[in-house]
Amino acid sequence: MPNESGGGGHRAAPVHTDPAEVSVLTALSAVADPVRLQLIRELAGSDDWSRSCGSFDVPVGKAALSHHFSVLRGAGLVEQRDQGPRRVNRLRREEFEARFPGLLDLLLRE
Amino acid sequence: MPNESGGGGHRAAPVHTDPAEVSVLTALSAVADPVRLQLIRELAGSDDWSRSCGSFDVPVGKAALSHHFSVLRGAGLVEQRDQGPRRVNRLRREEFEARFPGLLDLLLRE
Repeated sequence: MPNESGGGGHRAAPVHTDPAEVSVLTALSAVADPVRLQLIRELAGSDDWSRSCGSFDVPVGKAALSHHFSVLRGAGLVEQRDQGPRRVNRLRREEFEARFPGLLDLLLRE
Repeated sequence: MPNESGGGGHRAAPVHTDPAEVSVLTALSAVADPVRLQLIRELAGSDDWSRSCGSFDVPVGKAALSHHFSVLRGAGLVEQRDQGPRRVNRLRREEFEARFPGLLDLLLRE
């Protein structure tokens, strides 16, 4: 989990996992959750890097949200970067699709 | 869960769910589990109705196994029938594929 650490109050940079290195069980566990499904769907409908972590319509607190994003990064689904005080997101649509063909479509079509 | 009930020691017939009525979240939760993934993979490599519940190579006890099969039935993945003392299984490959195209392939290809 990211934590506050010196350097002008910037958090530690988020750690990412390449979708190519994600197991099918890890990917399925990441998407088999209503909150993460909602995050993925909102991200899919947004421009890359346009959404900060606090901008999603999900009924969870900050710590839980941070955990959910960590799981999504670990499954190769989401990339994050810090822009000043905001942590912004993009869905790794092409890379994830290359690793798990059709899975994102399944999540997004209903 | 099936329970012993009169009529010559036959269990209650298993309850099934039509894949057409299964939500994507229910399907994903059903397959995002190492034991159930193993059951699905072994079933996919076996003839319909050739495998009894006790014939799978999974490291769980009878009660847990019964729960896993119940989850698979509830996700429209597995059909069961009782043949004398054995409860035999088939993977609902075509129906599940029609509801969630590509998902079974994803589970079976690695």
